Amino acid sequence: MSGIEQQFVEWLKSRKIPPGESVVTGIGDDAAVVKLDGQMVVTTDTISDGTHFDLTKHRFSQIGHKALGVSLSDLAGMAARPRFATISYSLPTGILLESLVELFDGSAKLGEQFGCSIIGGDTNSWDGPLSICTTAIGSLPQDFSESGWRLSAGKPGDKILVTGSFGGSISGRHLEIAPRCELALRLRDHFTIHAATDVTDSLTHDLQAILSASGCGARIDLDAIPIHGDSSRLAGSSGRSPLEHALYDGEDFELILTCNPATAEAILSVENLETKITEIGMLTEGSGIIDTVTSEPVSVSGYQH
Amino acid sequence: MSGIEQQFVEWLKSRKIPPGESVVTGIGDDAAVVKLDGQMVVTTDTISDGTHFDLTKHRFSQIGHKALGVSLSDLAGMAARPRFATISYSLPTGILLESLVELFDGSAKLGEQFGCSIIGGDTNSWDGPLSICTTAIGSLPQDFSESGWRLSAGKPGDKILVTGSFGGSISGRHLEIAPRCELALRLRDHFTIHAATDVTDSLTHDLQAILSASGCGARIDLDAIPIHGDSSRLAGSSGRSPLEHALYDGEDFELILTCNPATAEAILSVENLETKITEIGMLTEGSGIIDTVTSEPVSVSGYQH
Repeated sequence: MSGIEQQFVEWLKSRKIPPGESVVTGIGDDAAVVKLDGQMVVTTDTISDGTHFDLTKHRFSQIGHKALGVSLSDLAGMAARPRFATISYSLPTGILLESLVELFDGSAKLGEQFGCSIIGGDTNSWDGPLSICTTAIGSLPQDFSESGWRLSAGKPGDKILVTGSFGGSISGRHLEIAPRCELALRLRDHFTIHAATDVTDSLTHDLQAILSASGCGARIDLDAIPIHGDSSRLAGSSGRSPLEHALYDGEDFELILTCNPATAEAILSVENLETKITEIGMLTEGSGIIDTVTSEPVSVSGYQH
Repeated sequence: MSGIEQQFVEWLKSRKIPPGESVVTGIGDDAAVVKLDGQMVVTTDTISDGTHFDLTKHRFSQIGHKALGVSLSDLAGMAARPRFATISYSLPTGILLESLVELFDGSAKLGEQFGCSIIGGDTNSWDGPLSICTTAIGSLPQDFSESGWRLSAGKPGDKILVTGSFGGSISGRHLEIAPRCELALRLRDHFTIHAATDVTDSLTHDLQAILSASGCGARIDLDAIPIHGDSSRLAGSSGRSPLEHALYDGEDFELILTCNPATAEAILSVENLETKITEIGMLTEGSGIIDTVTSEPVSVSGYQH
C-alpha cells in the first residue's frame, strides 16, 4: 500500500462508527460480512473525473455524494431498500488525506440518510484521474414479485408516471442527486407498479429502455412533461428549447413508472409525497414514442457524458 | 451511452446464458436481483492498466481473469462460497468490442469454475486507461462463526499454516490467479480456523495484518517458508535472495491460516488437497515477527504496485 492508502485505512479504522445494523464485519478485513433477509438487489457504477464530475469545479463532498447517489438511484428504480455499499477509489497522485476523507464522508452522509452502511472498499493510487466505483446492495421482501419494477414489466394500457421534473441537470443538479428511495419504498408497499427505471441517460432514452424491454410503444403528452427550471435557464444560451432539455438531457435521477390506470389515479391522489408525480402518457401496442397531440414520432436520444 | 457501450450491452443481452442459480434478474435492468441465504460476504477491488497489468504485454482474457480472481481470493480468505459478481469497466477510447468481450469472458470463465455468476455491471468510456472494478459476493452458512477466518481471530499458541508457495509472481503468476476457494470451503467445513487472510501485499505484510488485528506476535521458521520457483529464477537478476522474494513480493494469492496445534496437525495429515499446506511458525504473545532460529526480528514490507 502507498502512504495515502495506509493513512486512509488508519483513518477509517479510527472512526469507531458503529458498523450498522446487520453488519457482522465491516471495513478492515479481507471482505465485509453482513446478514440480509429476502431478495438482494445489487448495482454498480463508476464515476470519473472529466466525465461525470470535474475536480477543478466540484467539491470532494459533492463528488462523494454523487458516487453513492447514482447507485442508490438504481436501487430506487428497483424498489429496493438501500442496505450496504462498497466503494473502490482510484486515487490520483498527490491527493491529500483530507480530500479523501471529504470524499468518503460525502458518500457516508448520503448513505446514513437512507440506512445504507459503507461496509468495505479498496483504495489504489495511480497516475490516472480520480475514479470511484460504488456497489450498492439493497433488499426486497422475500415474497416481492419477481417481475415488478423491471424494465420488461410494462403493459399496453399502462399509464406512464414520472417523479419530479426534467432537464438541465448539468447546471449542478447532477451532483446533488436526491435518490427517490423513500418514495419508491412507499409506492412499493402500497401499489402495484409494472415497469420502473431511474432516469440517467434521458427521459426519452430511459422510457425507450422500458419500451424495448416490454415490447411496447408509448404515447406521451409533450405539454405534460414536467420541465425543470434549469431547462428554461439553459435554453437561453443553449439554442435548445426547455422541452428539448427535459426530453434529452441526462442525470435527472427521477423515476419513470408504469401501472394500470386505476393504480395511476390512486397514486396521483396521494397527498404529501416527497416529490410531485406527473402522468405523461401511456403505453401502447407497437413500438417507439408518439406525440399524443400531433401523432408524430418523438425522437429518442440521451446524454453523452 | 457511447457506441462501444451500446454494442457491449447488446452482446451481453444476445448471450442467452442461463442467469445462474438464485439469480432472479441478471444483466440488463437497473440492478440485479438475487436470492441468498445465510451470511453474505462482499469484497471489491479495482485493477488498472499500468498498475496491476500492462495492456502492451497482457491479453484481455488474462486481465479479465485477474479482475475477478483478486476478489475471489478475498472470498477464499473469508471462507465464503463465491456466488455473484458485478464488473464496472472504465474503457479507454478506441477499445474494440472483441477486446471487451475477451475481457468479460476472462472473468466469466473463472466465475463459472467457482459457481460465481456475473449478474451486472457498468461500462463507461473515457480518455483514461483501462480500469476494472469487480465486486464479488459470497455466502457463509447462517450459523457460521462470526469470528472465524477474521484477521483478528489469531491466538497466541496458534500454528501458522500457508497454502502453496511464495514470491516472484511478477513473472506472470500474478495474472493467473488460482483463488483458493475450494480449499477454503473444504477447510471451513472440517476444521476450526482462527485467523485467515489471502496474501496480496506480501507474506510478511499480510501476516503482520493478522498480528496487528489479533494483538499477537509470531515466530516463523525461515527455512520452512515454501519458496516458489519464480523466486529462485528472479533472484538471478534481482539482487535479492529467493527467500526475500518469498517474504516481500506481493500477489501470491495464497492463504495464511492460524489454528490450534491439534487442528494444524490434522490439516497437515489430510491427503489429496488441491495445494500443499505448510506450517511456517506460530503465534506468540507480544508483537512483530521473530525468526525462530536466530530470534532476530524479521522485517515486514510489501509489494508496491
